[in-house]
Amino acid sequence: MPAHTLRMGLIGAGRIGRMHAEHLTAFISSVDLLMVADVYEQAARECAQRYAIPAYTRNYHDVLEHPDIQAVVISSSTDTHARIIAEAAHHGKHIFCEKPIALDLSSIDEALRAVERAGVKLHVGFNRRFDASYRRVQKALQTSEIGQPLVIHIVSRDPAPPPLEYLRVSGGIFLDMTIHDFDMARFLIGSEVEEVSAIANAIDQPGIASVGDVANAIVTLQFVNGVIGTISNSRAASYGYDQRVEVLGSAGSIAIGNNYPNSAVISDAHSVRRDLPLHFFLERYAESFISEMAAFVDVVRSNAPVPVTGSDGRISVAMALAAQKSLIERRPVRLDEIE
Amino acid sequence: MPAHTLRMGLIGAGRIGRMHAEHLTAFISSVDLLMVADVYEQAARECAQRYAIPAYTRNYHDVLEHPDIQAVVISSSTDTHARIIAEAAHHGKHIFCEKPIALDLSSIDEALRAVERAGVKLHVGFNRRFDASYRRVQKALQTSEIGQPLVIHIVSRDPAPPPLEYLRVSGGIFLDMTIHDFDMARFLIGSEVEEVSAIANAIDQPGIASVGDVANAIVTLQFVNGVIGTISNSRAASYGYDQRVEVLGSAGSIAIGNNYPNSAVISDAHSVRRDLPLHFFLERYAESFISEMAAFVDVVRSNAPVPVTGSDGRISVAMALAAQKSLIERRPVRLDEIE
Amino acid sequence: MPAHTLRMGLIGAGRIGRMHAEHLTAFISSVDLLMVADVYEQAARECAQRYAIPAYTRNYHDVLEHPDIQAVVISSSTDTHARIIAEAAHHGKHIFCEKPIALDLSSIDEALRAVERAGVKLHVGFNRRFDASYRRVQKALQTSEIGQPLVIHIVSRDPAPPPLEYLRVSGGIFLDMTIHDFDMARFLIGSEVEEVSAIANAIDQPGIASVGDVANAIVTLQFVNGVIGTISNSRAASYGYDQRVEVLGSAGSIAIGNNYPNSAVISDAHSVRRDLPLHFFLERYAESFISEMAAFVDVVRSNAPVPVTGSDGRISVAMALAAQKSLIERRPVRLDEIE
Amino acid sequence: MPAHTLRMGLIGAGRIGRMHAEHLTAFISSVDLLMVADVYEQAARECAQRYAIPAYTRNYHDVLEHPDIQAVVISSSTDTHARIIAEAAHHGKHIFCEKPIALDLSSIDEALRAVERAGVKLHVGFNRRFDASYRRVQKALQTSEIGQPLVIHIVSRDPAPPPLEYLRVSGGIFLDMTIHDFDMARFLIGSEVEEVSAIANAIDQPGIASVGDVANAIVTLQFVNGVIGTISNSRAASYGYDQRVEVLGSAGSIAIGNNYPNSAVISDAHSVRRDLPLHFFLERYAESFISEMAAFVDVVRSNAPVPVTGSDGRISVAMALAAQKSLIERRPVRLDEIE
Repeated sequence: MPAHTLRMGLIGAGRIGRMHAEHLTAFISSVDLLMVADVYEQAARECAQRYAIPAYTRNYHDVLEHPDIQAVVISSSTDTHARIIAEAAHHGKHIFCEKPIALDLSSIDEALRAVERAGVKLHVGFNRRFDASYRRVQKALQTSEIGQPLVIHIVSRDPAPPPLEYLRVSGGIFLDMTIHDFDMARFLIGSEVEEVSAIANAIDQPGIASVGDVANAIVTLQFVNGVIGTISNSRAASYGYDQRVEVLGSAGSIAIGNNYPNSAVISDAHSVRRDLPLHFFLERYAESFISEMAAFVDVVRSNAPVPVTGSDGRISVAMALAAQKSLIERRPVRLDEIE
Repeated sequence: MPAHTLRMGLIGAGRIGRMHAEHLTAFISSVDLLMVADVYEQAARECAQRYAIPAYTRNYHDVLEHPDIQAVVISSSTDTHARIIAEAAHHGKHIFCEKPIALDLSSIDEALRAVERAGVKLHVGFNRRFDASYRRVQKALQTSEIGQPLVIHIVSRDPAPPPLEYLRVSGGIFLDMTIHDFDMARFLIGSEVEEVSAIANAIDQPGIASVGDVANAIVTLQFVNGVIGTISNSRAASYGYDQRVEVLGSAGSIAIGNNYPNSAVISDAHSVRRDLPLHFFLERYAESFISEMAAFVDVVRSNAPVPVTGSDGRISVAMALAAQKSLIERRPVRLDEIE
Repeated sequence: MPAHTLRMGLIGAGRIGRMHAEHLTAFISSVDLLMVADVYEQAARECAQRYAIPAYTRNYHDVLEHPDIQAVVISSSTDTHARIIAEAAHHGKHIFCEKPIALDLSSIDEALRAVERAGVKLHVGFNRRFDASYRRVQKALQTSEIGQPLVIHIVSRDPAPPPLEYLRVSGGIFLDMTIHDFDMARFLIGSEVEEVSAIANAIDQPGIASVGDVANAIVTLQFVNGVIGTISNSRAASYGYDQRVEVLGSAGSIAIGNNYPNSAVISDAHSVRRDLPLHFFLERYAESFISEMAAFVDVVRSNAPVPVTGSDGRISVAMALAAQKSLIERRPVRLDEIE
Repeated sequence: MPAHTLRMGLIGAGRIGRMHAEHLTAFISSVDLLMVADVYEQAARECAQRYAIPAYTRNYHDVLEHPDIQAVVISSSTDTHARIIAEAAHHGKHIFCEKPIALDLSSIDEALRAVERAGVKLHVGFNRRFDASYRRVQKALQTSEIGQPLVIHIVSRDPAPPPLEYLRVSGGIFLDMTIHDFDMARFLIGSEVEEVSAIANAIDQPGIASVGDVANAIVTLQFVNGVIGTISNSRAASYGYDQRVEVLGSAGSIAIGNNYPNSAVISDAHSVRRDLPLHFFLERYAESFISEMAAFVDVVRSNAPVPVTGSDGRISVAMALAAQKSLIERRPVRLDEIE
C-alpha cells in the first residue's frame, strides 16, 4: 500500500453505494476501501464480498470510529445524511455525501456548522457537473465561446417514476429530482437565482397525484445577473432518460443532447431510426460518477478546494423549497423568502 | 379566365405584400390579382409592374370598391388592419389579413362584428400552421402518436432585432413576435391557455431596453386541459432564425428542428459543422406562406371552414396582453383578466 | 409579352415532360410555351389543357417547324433524342435534352455534329448539378475548403425498380441510372476519369436478373488527376430515394445527406426516429429541375456558356459503356478503349 | 486469490501492451497479471511499477516458462508474433495475440499448426468486433432486421500517418491498416470474400509515396454469397479518426457514425458545429479493447469457442496480400490465387 493511498469507508450499500464501491475498488487508484456499513447486514456483507472490502458492519459508527479511515462516502437514506455528516466531521473524517444533504435548511445548517468546526472537507454529490457534455457547456460559457449568457433551458426527465412508497418520503419532485437541475443551472450560469416560479401537472400519473406529488413540472429561473431560464422535468419519458441543456448567449448557443448506446441508424420502409438513449442515470452518468469520486479523492489528498461544497448543497435545497412554495401559492417566490 | 378563377385585390405592397403578390401570380392557380394598393404610390406601381397586376392605386378604397374583386389580402401596417377589415366586410369582400388584427381587443371586436354581420370569410395569417414540420407535430398529436400531450416547449428566435423605430410602434415583443407562438401553442395542443407568466431581459440589447421593450423573454403557459408549456423568444440569435417546438406526451415526444439551405456537413481540423439554418422567415417559411394562401383561396371558393379564424386572431392578442401584464406585475395572469 | 420573352416548345409529355411544362409555365418568368408534342395525342392534349399551352400535336415536326419557337425541350423517349436533336438543330432551335442523348456513341456524335454545324445551344439535362446540396459540395471543392480532393464516394439508390418492360430497353443500370453519378463525379472533381471497374449483383431481384440487368452495382473510378472514387447504386432501397456524396480532401471532408419532408424527430418506447426521406426524384430534385431550366433559359437569352454541354452528355455515356464492359470482362476498363 | 482467478503474462510493453496491462489490472475481474516482458528493460520495469505487476523481464521466455502463468498476451512487434505464438503453444499457454499474426502466410501456418498441436486457445486481436456500434450492425444482420445483405461500405481513416520508419516495415497499408476492415467485412457479412480489387493514390503524401506505400486506398470486395462491397482507407483524415460502416439490405440499411467526446452543438454567426470525433483508436475503441480481453479471459476459463480464431487472423492477411497484388497488377485478384 503506497504511502499516499487514501483509506476510506462506505456508509450505505444500496444501489448508489454499491456503485461507489465498484468505482473506488476498480477505477480509482490509490484508494483502500476498508469497511462498508449498511443497516441491512446482508447488503453490507454482499457488498463487502463482491468488492473485496475487508470489513462490513450494520453500525455506521464502526466506520466513523475506525482509526485508519480518513474519508467516508455517505450514501445511506436521505434522512440520515445530515446526522452522519455531523458525526463524521466530529470524528475528523473527510466526507463525500450524496445529495440532498437534508430536506430542510436547519438540518443542513447544523451539519455544515459541524463540518466547519471540524475543518474537514465536505463534497456534495452533484455528479452531473463532472459529465463531459455538461463540462463542455461550462467551458463554452467560461471562455465566452457563445458570448454573454442570456437564457438557459434545462430538460431533465426520468424514464419511469419511482415506486409510490419512495415518492411518499422523497420530499417531492423539486427536492428529489429538480435539485440536480437547480445545481446545474447555478454551475453553468455562474450566478445565483433570485426568484423561481413553478407550474406542474400529473395528468398522466394519477398514482403520483394520489401521494400529493406532480409528474411534470416547469420551473422558471430569474438569475441575479439577469439571465432567465427554465427547467423542464418529467417523471415518465417513455423513450428513456432525457438529459439536455441549451444556453443562448449573445454570440451563439450551445446545446447538448442525449447519449446513446451505439451510433447505428437503421432505415427501412417505415422510418429512419436509432436505438433509445442510455436508459437511466447509472448508465448515462457512469463516467461522471467516477470522475466525481476521483475529484473528491484528489481534493482530500491535496489542498485543492472542494468542487461541490456544502453551500452548493444548501442552495439547491433552498431553490427546491422556493419552487414548492411557488407551486402551492401560484406566484413567483424569491429565494430570500426561504429561510 | 375560367369561371372558377378567384379575382383578388392586394392592400399593402411592403415586404409581405410583395411576397403575397408573387405567390398569388406564380404559384397559386386560378387566381386573378386585379389591383394592388399602397399609400406609397411607387411601391404600388412597382409591385404591379413586377407581378403583372393590371391596376394599382394609392387608395385602398379603390380595391374595396372594385366590383370584380371577390377577396382581398390585407398586408398594410398593423394599425390599419382592423379598420380595413371592417370596410372590406362592408363591401362584401372575403378577407385574408396579416396578424395581428390589432393591438387592442376592442378594435378587434369591432372588426370581427363587421365580418360577422357581412357574412364574409376572414382568415388571419398565422402561416406557421401551414409549415410541413409544424403540421407533422400536429398530426402526431391528433393521431395520439405520442399519447396524451403533457408539456410543450416552443423556441422562436429572430436573427437580429428590427430597427428601433419599428420596435417603438410594434406593441412590444409579445404582440409583435410571441403572438405567432401563442397561436402555435393553441394550434398544437388543441386547448385554450388559462394563465400565462412572463420573465424577460434585455441585457445584451441596451437599444431595445431604451425603447422599453425586452430582447429575451420566457412565457409559461397553463392550458385548460392541464398541459403546461413554455415559449422562449429572442430578438437576436446570432446563428439565424431558430424555430423549434417539442411536445412531450404520455407515450413519447416529438421535436422539430431548423431548416437548412443544404445538407452538407464539413469536417476539418477544427470542427464538424454545417452551414447556418435558413436565415429569416421569408426563406424558412416560404412554402408555408404559399400553402396558407392556397388554403384561403380554396376556402373562399368552397364552403370549407376557415382554418385560422378571427377568433384565433383575437385570442393570440389576448395572450400577448396577458403576458405583458404578467411581466409588469411580476405575477401569473389569467386570460380572463384581459378584456 | 415583353420583348425578351423566350418562346418555347415541348416534345414529350410523359412524366418528365409534364414536370417541365409546369416549371416553364409557373415558375420561370418570361417564357412562353407555345406548343407541346407527344406521340400519344391524349397526353399532348391533356398537358396543353393543364398548363394552358395554346397548341398541341402528335407530330413533333410541328414544334420544330413552328416559326416563333426559339428553343425546344426534348423529353421524349431516349431512342428519339439524338434524331430530334439533329432535326431541331437543323431548324435552328436551341435545345434542352434529357439525358442520355443516346445509348451509343456514334448516334451521339452525329447529333453533336448537327448541333455544331447549326451553331445552336444544346443543354443536357443533368439536373443534379443544380441541386443546392451538390452545389455546396462543388463550392467547397472550388474554394479549397477541404483542400485537394483525394477520394469521392457517391451513393445513389432508387426506392424501387422500374417495370421490367422499361428495364429491357433501358440500356442497363449504368446507362439508365449510374449515368447521373458519372456526370456528378466529373462535375465535382473537375477532372476526367481514365479507368473504371464494376462489380454487381441482383441477389434480391430475380426479375431484374431475368432481363440481364443487375440491381446493385459498385463502380470504382480512377481520375486523371489521381483522385479515386466509388459509385454505389441500387434499384431498390426500401427506405426511399438515397442520394449522397462524400469527398475526402487533404484538409477535410464534405458529405451531403438525404432531404426529408419535415424535421420532426419522434421518440417513443421503441426508437428515436424520423419520417422517410423524400421518396423519389420528382420531390427530391424538384428545385434543381427548376433551377436547371431557368439556367437554360438564361443561357439562350444571354451569351453565357452552356453549363452542361453535349460533350458532358457524351462522356457520361462513354463511362457507362466502359462500366458495362468492365462488368462483363471482369477487369478495369480504360475510357480510351471505348470508341 | 479465488480459485478461478486466471494467471496471465504480458509480452510487449509498448503502447498497446500498456493498455492491456491497465485493462487486465483495473477493469477485468479475477485476473492476476504476474509478469511483463519487453526487450527494453525500462519499458518492462515501468509497466510493472505502474500497474503493480509483481515481476518484469527483458526475456519473454521467462513469461513462457513461468509455471503459474496460464495465458499470455502478445503485443510485441509484428515480426515476433508468429514465433512467440508457436513457443507459447509449446509451453501450453493460451494465447491472445495482436493482429496481424505475421505478414506472410507460411509463418502464420506454422504458428497455427503449433497451436493446434498443443491444443491451446488462440485469440487474434480484432478488437473492433467488440465495439458496441459494430456489434449493433452485426445484430441487425443476424436478425434480418434489414433483410438480406446486398452491399457493404466500410470507411476507415486514421487522423495522421505513422512515422516513415514505421511505414517502411509495416507491410503496406493493406497489411497494416485495411486488415481490420477485411476482418470487419467478413465478420458482418458472414461470408468469405472470393475476389478483391484495389486502387490507390498518395497525391497528398509524397513521404508515403517515397517509401513505396499509398495514403488513400479503395478495395472492392466480391463475397462468395453475392454481396459486393468497398473499403475506403486513408492515412490522413484531418478531422480525426473516421470509422464507419454501412450495409444495404433487401429490407433496409444500417449505418454507424463516429463517436464524439461530448454531444454539444455550438451555433454561432459562422456555423452549427460540434467538436471533432474521438481522435484515435485508443479513445475510440477503449471499451472494445476491454470487452475483447474480457471475452478472451472468459473463453480460457470456460469451454466457449474462441470468438476470433487463428483462421480469422490468417484470412485477413490473405485478403491484404490479394489487395497488394491487385494494386500492382491492376486487375481483380481471387483469394485462391494467394497461397
